[in-house]
Amino acid sequence: MKKVVAALLLTTCAGAVYAQQALKPEEMIKYRKAGYSFMAWNMGKIKANLEGTYNKEQVIAAANVVAATANSGMGALFGAGTDKDVGGEKTRVKPEFFKEQDKVKELAMAYIKEANELQKVAATGDAAAVKVQFGKTGESCKACHDKFRKD
Amino acid sequence: MKKVVAALLLTTCAGAVYAQQALKPEEMIKYRKAGYSFMAWNMGKIKANLEGTYNKEQVIAAANVVAATANSGMGALFGAGTDKDVGGEKTRVKPEFFKEQDKVKELAMAYIKEANELQKVAATGDAAAVKVQFGKTGESCKACHDKFRKD
Repeated sequence: MKKVVAALLLTTCAGAVYAQQALKPEEMIKYRKAGYSFMAWNMGKIKANLEGTYNKEQVIAAANVVAATANSGMGALFGAGTDKDVGGEKTRVKPEFFKEQDKVKELAMAYIKEANELQKVAATGDAAAVKVQFGKTGESCKACHDKFRKD
Repeated sequence: MKKVVAALLLTTCAGAVYAQQALKPEEMIKYRKAGYSFMAWNMGKIKANLEGTYNKEQVIAAANVVAATANSGMGALFGAGTDKDVGGEKTRVKPEFFKEQDKVKELAMAYIKEANELQKVAATGDAAAVKVQFGKTGESCKACHDKFRKD
């Protein structure tokens, strides 16, 4: 089942079978946490721009990270054995993530859509529009956290 | 001195002063390690494509992450107090990083240049050209690791 989910996410967006790296479960957890963490830093930068002095170039750079991360095929990092802490790597993913394929796909696609839109809107430099789209993107992150993340 | 380096890196590429997040040293270390780690996963994916079945879309997606990371202003994550382990976050950065501004700038700019070129070449789908540029990008990573990273 877990492999099915990973394969599903891996092929969902580009419609192709990808080259696979041979990663240990603890490596998958480490990399996916790194991706979310680095994205959080970039979301934080956009927030700081919206609340302080708006710098178009910084927001574009941050939105590029958010979009690139969303499109990076992170489903491959939810393979077999990554449903629990392993090899010193902790995970907050709920067991349901590996069982509810349709919901995972729905939330993942919504998040990718909003992240791509954020990248587009950021490029315009329209701070008010970025604020709206930043909110939508954050909501798409939260939707998955609420459903599939512990805490 | 540390603040100077951070400010330098922050302004080097876009020539503008950016909105700043108030981050603790351990948060800066966490985020920068996350960025390098997630980039490493994406570099690994490109390597797997070059050594196995080449999938243009996956390479483009991975190169987009590498380039977006390179352009994300990570110099801001080398602020005061991040030259040593702090708050449970370990770092392998050498003290020299915070003293040799010109060399840091030189290596950072070289890495950004190669990462941007990798993104451009990936978009063409020319695997042979990607292989060459992947090598150059990896060398630009290694140049900084050799000079400023412990181990």
